[in-house]
Amino acid sequence: MTSKGILSISEVNALPEENFEWLFGNVIEHCPEAAAAVAAKRPFSSSEDLKKAFENYLEKLDTSDKEMVLQKHPDLAGKLADEGKLTIESQNEQKLAGLDGMTKDEAQSLTNNNYLYKEKFRFPFVICARENKVHSILQGLEIRLKNNRETELKTGINEVKKICRIRIDDLVWHD
Amino acid sequence: MTSKGILSISEVNALPEENFEWLFGNVIEHCPEAAAAVAAKRPFSSSEDLKKAFENYLEKLDTSDKEMVLQKHPDLAGKLADEGKLTIESQNEQKLAGLDGMTKDEAQSLTNNNYLYKEKFRFPFVICARENKVHSILQGLEIRLKNNRETELKTGINEVKKICRIRIDDLVWHD
Repeated sequence: MTSKGILSISEVNALPEENFEWLFGNVIEHCPEAAAAVAAKRPFSSSEDLKKAFENYLEKLDTSDKEMVLQKHPDLAGKLADEGKLTIESQNEQKLAGLDGMTKDEAQSLTNNNYLYKEKFRFPFVICARENKVHSILQGLEIRLKNNRETELKTGINEVKKICRIRIDDLVWHD
Repeated sequence: MTSKGILSISEVNALPEENFEWLFGNVIEHCPEAAAAVAAKRPFSSSEDLKKAFENYLEKLDTSDKEMVLQKHPDLAGKLADEGKLTIESQNEQKLAGLDGMTKDEAQSLTNNNYLYKEKFRFPFVICARENKVHSILQGLEIRLKNNRETELKTGINEVKKICRIRIDDLVWHD
């Protein structure tokens, strides 16, 4: 992905609602309802303004809806990745982080700790892969496993925000 | 989705390669490699010309790659749909076909026959949901279960072509 974007913010403002919802329907993974809510807040004055609208959407969700947002994320280097069934965004991000080139030990550690993480928190480990590489992902997972559920819910949602910002950068020209 | 599209064909021709690959990365479900191949064939004179390039890509695949294309499709009203993890395109298409409003009997019939279909052909049942409703999908599945594998591979790929055309209509303005 480039940071050049596909549309200017004024073109984004002018998009038919359905096109807006399609275009931004996965800036939060598998969450077109966020795009629908944000579409109704247009016009935006800048891409930053648009990003803040998505962050605001996330912040206003109650605990169970936040958990649902995390639930929609795939396991890093998990079954969907193996089957080539990730969303394009996740596929690119996991690849750029180097997750398709892990050693056998790294892959085993990720699988084991992903499992422990889901056992403990009942939602998957979410991290902004584009800001990390294999080593920091594995390390982050080990550290975050020690958190309590409340902290992890907050941390996970913060990672979703970072992912969302980067995905928007791929779609909207910088002002 | 609307048929209005997001970009004109000349804007599509001018897109940075990565943006093109993202935008068209799922016109064939989970097949960004098709978009990468088609990106290299630009410029296109019309959206029809672009559609033909994707069809041509599909036609030139060998048997095992065609099977792989079908493999990447989700089961209709299957596990990924239940979990809210379909691609946006599939989610919209299945909803428009009415698959989220089936009776219990219809859902059971679809699940059973999807299973039999995959047992027989070793790839999932693919049908252009946007050209069908629940009844014609269930009927199509029963009829197609009787085909041989060669016919079904061809039929499935033809359905992929129809899906691809409709998804492109959602992205590119009519000329």
